[in-house]
Amino acid sequence: MKKLINAPERVLDDALAGVAAAHPDLSVDVGARTITRAGGPTTGKVALVSGGGSGHEPLHGGFVGPGMLDAACPGEVFTSPVPDQLLAAAERVDGGAGVLFVVKNYTGDRLNFRMAADLAADEGIAVATVTVDDDVAVRDSARTAGRRGTGATVFVEKIAGALAERGADLPSVVDMAERVNAATRSFAVALSACTPPAAGRPGFELGEDEIEIGVGIHGEPGRRRERFRSAKDTVATCMDAILDDLPPVTGEGTIVMVNGLGATPLIELYVVFNEVAAVLAEKGATIARSLVGDYVTSLDMAGVSITVCAADAEMLSLWDAPVNTPALRWGV
Amino acid sequence: MKKLINAPERVLDDALAGVAAAHPDLSVDVGARTITRAGGPTTGKVALVSGGGSGHEPLHGGFVGPGMLDAACPGEVFTSPVPDQLLAAAERVDGGAGVLFVVKNYTGDRLNFRMAADLAADEGIAVATVTVDDDVAVRDSARTAGRRGTGATVFVEKIAGALAERGADLPSVVDMAERVNAATRSFAVALSACTPPAAGRPGFELGEDEIEIGVGIHGEPGRRRERFRSAKDTVATCMDAILDDLPPVTGEGTIVMVNGLGATPLIELYVVFNEVAAVLAEKGATIARSLVGDYVTSLDMAGVSITVCAADAEMLSLWDAPVNTPALRWGV
Repeated sequence: MKKLINAPERVLDDALAGVAAAHPDLSVDVGARTITRAGGPTTGKVALVSGGGSGHEPLHGGFVGPGMLDAACPGEVFTSPVPDQLLAAAERVDGGAGVLFVVKNYTGDRLNFRMAADLAADEGIAVATVTVDDDVAVRDSARTAGRRGTGATVFVEKIAGALAERGADLPSVVDMAERVNAATRSFAVALSACTPPAAGRPGFELGEDEIEIGVGIHGEPGRRRERFRSAKDTVATCMDAILDDLPPVTGEGTIVMVNGLGATPLIELYVVFNEVAAVLAEKGATIARSLVGDYVTSLDMAGVSITVCAADAEMLSLWDAPVNTPALRWGV
Repeated sequence: MKKLINAPERVLDDALAGVAAAHPDLSVDVGARTITRAGGPTTGKVALVSGGGSGHEPLHGGFVGPGMLDAACPGEVFTSPVPDQLLAAAERVDGGAGVLFVVKNYTGDRLNFRMAADLAADEGIAVATVTVDDDVAVRDSARTAGRRGTGATVFVEKIAGALAERGADLPSVVDMAERVNAATRSFAVALSACTPPAAGRPGFELGEDEIEIGVGIHGEPGRRRERFRSAKDTVATCMDAILDDLPPVTGEGTIVMVNGLGATPLIELYVVFNEVAAVLAEKGATIARSLVGDYVTSLDMAGVSITVCAADAEMLSLWDAPVNTPALRWGV
């Protein structure tokens, strides 16, 4: 294992110190493992708090800032954040209008966010939770009951975050978050496994021409392995799975994310985007907005996830609203 | 070789079609291989044109847009763009105030940009050229006489692009581009080689615990190979080389880029940034601005480059000016 780290047990502390040094707009508490907006809570605004295992950067710390999250809580690599950490984040960002926990659907994450919500409620903080479960590859797994939460998290955090920034109340923000999750589906393929620093070896082995179809963002196995043929064929597999499960995509237009899993060159992501656009055009669907890049990664895994959101006009308007975070920035 | 492509000879065409589909603000001519701003030339503004081999995305196409480049000309992977292509771009973006070619210091690039400049002059387009040569790792190589051009290209394109956007004339924009290049140095290390699609195999082999010190962005060899010890030691090697060669960094503040070469997880880039910040703090230097992410890549190479610009107040002001491109966006 070669990684640009000092020691496996120091990765998260060192990276958080790097986030603090690089982003003066963020307040990073390395000890408490919280990343919040500098300047403290926004009075009267619903606060969005997300978190999950590290190794998926820029998710979630890269999405903290005006227009998106108020706080992110990184756990150890591929390990859920703990309840005290989530509670500390909720306390720090609560501006009196309540807190929305954005949780990816993994059993450990759900449990720890639920415990934190109970602890926060004991302190008089109103907490609601939205669970993101957009990955149509598998129904249940060792880590989840139901679908896994992956790329849609970016869409929920952006769109519900924009609504919160406009001053909407907690039930309205919850409703929007749930609508975005319901309108969004993802599917991923891996060309190689990732190597968690503490494990020191890849989570699985793929043959010289094999790809894992429907892989999870921790290297969980997917639906099957198959021989790689072409970007076009791979995208067809992903898009079939997504569109089978998605509400009609012929409305206001889709928001499409072609997301690198960590080790995939951007030139390949654009080749994939071109194939996604061709499939959607064939279905009569319009791509209204898009993201191409690394947004929800899986350490050094080579591969791609595709996320499609069948957006309505309100979602598009909120997507376009200003956002000012390390990983998404426009309109400011 | 596993890559998310359809065929090695189609990579660039497919990727350019993907860029066109993803970015309606850009005008992509797949046949002519030019990426320009939608809407045509800006009358009275100096136009910035850059280009180089593909495989370094988002460089240069991802930097086309208001506040930065007017056009990018991607060659085949790791292959210089051709003179006719560069001439076509100059013709498309010339707004009557002249064109600045931003050229990375590789022999093929310099030759072809020079031929294009001659052809453009024959058509009455005023062309000036700035050559970027920031990589302190090696003095000469198979591809270059003198230092190679790498990360500083982003700084030159951003800062000189902002000055052009403010309406400065060609000599002023040239002068600023040269000042930025003179104030900026880079150094890179690789943990693995990249695999060009047409070659189908890695450019070199590294042992299980070896890193290449001073690698180039096409996988050119660097100064030496050594055993990887820690991010801290690796950064110390890079920063010694950079700071030995850079003007004093104790002025207005530095702009620092910690750049992933393609396959390096963002969490590792933040670990590296933390070590860079520690070295600069020890020297009494301030980090005024920073970029952490993949900006100048080398396909699927694992590794990092560090770029430091000893910026003056004018450069910082131009850095902060609005920019609206796929890969850099703020202030708009």
